[in-house]
Amino acid sequence: MPYVNIKITKEGATAEQKAELISGVTQLLRDVLNKNPATTVVVIDEVETDNWGIGGETVTVLRQQAALKQQDQ
Amino acid sequence: MPYVNIKITKEGATAEQKAELISGVTQLLRDVLNKNPATTVVVIDEVETDNWGIGGETVTVLRQQAALKQQDQ
Amino acid sequence: MPYVNIKITKEGATAEQKAELISGVTQLLRDVLNKNPATTVVVIDEVETDNWGIGGETVTVLRQQAALKQQDQ
Amino acid sequence: MPYVNIKITKEGATAEQKAELISGVTQLLRDVLNKNPATTVVVIDEVETDNWGIGGETVTVLRQQAALKQQDQ
Amino acid sequence: MPYVNIKITKEGATAEQKAELISGVTQLLRDVLNKNPATTVVVIDEVETDNWGIGGETVTVLRQQAALKQQDQ
Amino acid sequence: MPYVNIKITKEGATAEQKAELISGVTQLLRDVLNKNPATTVVVIDEVETDNWGIGGETVTVLRQQAALKQQDQ
Repeated sequence: MPYVNIKITKEGATAEQKAELISGVTQLLRDVLNKNPATTVVVIDEVETDNWGIGGETVTVLRQQAALKQQDQ
Repeated sequence: MPYVNIKITKEGATAEQKAELISGVTQLLRDVLNKNPATTVVVIDEVETDNWGIGGETVTVLRQQAALKQQDQ
Repeated sequence: MPYVNIKITKEGATAEQKAELISGVTQLLRDVLNKNPATTVVVIDEVETDNWGIGGETVTVLRQQAALKQQDQ
Repeated sequence: MPYVNIKITKEGATAEQKAELISGVTQLLRDVLNKNPATTVVVIDEVETDNWGIGGETVTVLRQQAALKQQDQ
Repeated sequence: MPYVNIKITKEGATAEQKAELISGVTQLLRDVLNKNPATTVVVIDEVETDNWGIGGETVTVLRQQAALKQQDQ
Repeated sequence: MPYVNIKITKEGATAEQKAELISGVTQLLRDVLNKNPATTVVVIDEVETDNWGIGGETVTVLRQQAALKQQDQ
């Protein structure tokens, strides 16, 4: 009866991709720990890039910097 | 000073129902553990059915299967 | 299929009290939103008072201040 | 490699303010525990006032009561 | 830069099994969403069976009921 | 009335350091968003290095690799 919470930035994951994450992680818990899929719960949170930080910067800013760098080349 | 997080699928819970959950769980913590309601925090997350999985399937798919079954009868 | 996480300070809640919280919140979700108890998951986290803060202070310090106040009277 | 989750009510925090929270908490973890900013992750959740409760009431109701009180004066 | 939290009951998962969960879910996020493993964070919480409820009962009680049933056969 | 959850690896943070994190983040929320410290809740989770993964590896393994590297020099 595991509970899994996956947080990703909201950048266009499709319903199919989210379904793949859910079935994949449920299968992983069965394979590794013999957990019953019937009571394995998976919740995916999609977080705005303004609300996600890494290295002290928002992902919004990091994406802009990466885009500028690409342009420079 | 408990903190409670309730996650439900986003399927039309009304403001009144959410207020009932908040007052109910705050009362429960007072009754069972004598916790002070003044500092009891409750946060409700409503999650899209595409983002919630159980049994390896999204709730979107489970709802469709249930609707088809109903139609068959 | 709700998921509920209850965080309380680790201050001696008994197994019976925790079982009461679990049955109480499961019942609440059935009463208010007609949620199926069979797939309602409740997880209780008991947190050391050194690791819980409110008003900028740890609960350890708040408990000591309350005990001193009591002694003064 | 800390992970920090900040939950606030959705009441108009700007992108600049959220960026300040992210850089501030990342800096705090470096100052206090020498944690590497490069792998410090911060996620901010903005929660509707209908979905946040304290003292057994939703923040929506608390805000209305505060507004009425102000009017009375 | 996803963040994944896996909650399981504390019932003897080994360090090897937990390492498998971590590498497996990191790989899954790369395969499905092309997420960079270098900044994918996975945190596993192992929860006492007294603190986990499903169907309104603690896992401690459910395990006892299952053991009694087995004995009866 | 914000709620903040800080997750760090369990590697010897002292009570004083944790108190500093709690007062620091409470102050940050007052400075940036004018949030009331009296109802700002901070919970710190200290996670075993076997239970924390980044880059697909547990922190236990990453610490061992770093120690070996140091020895080599």
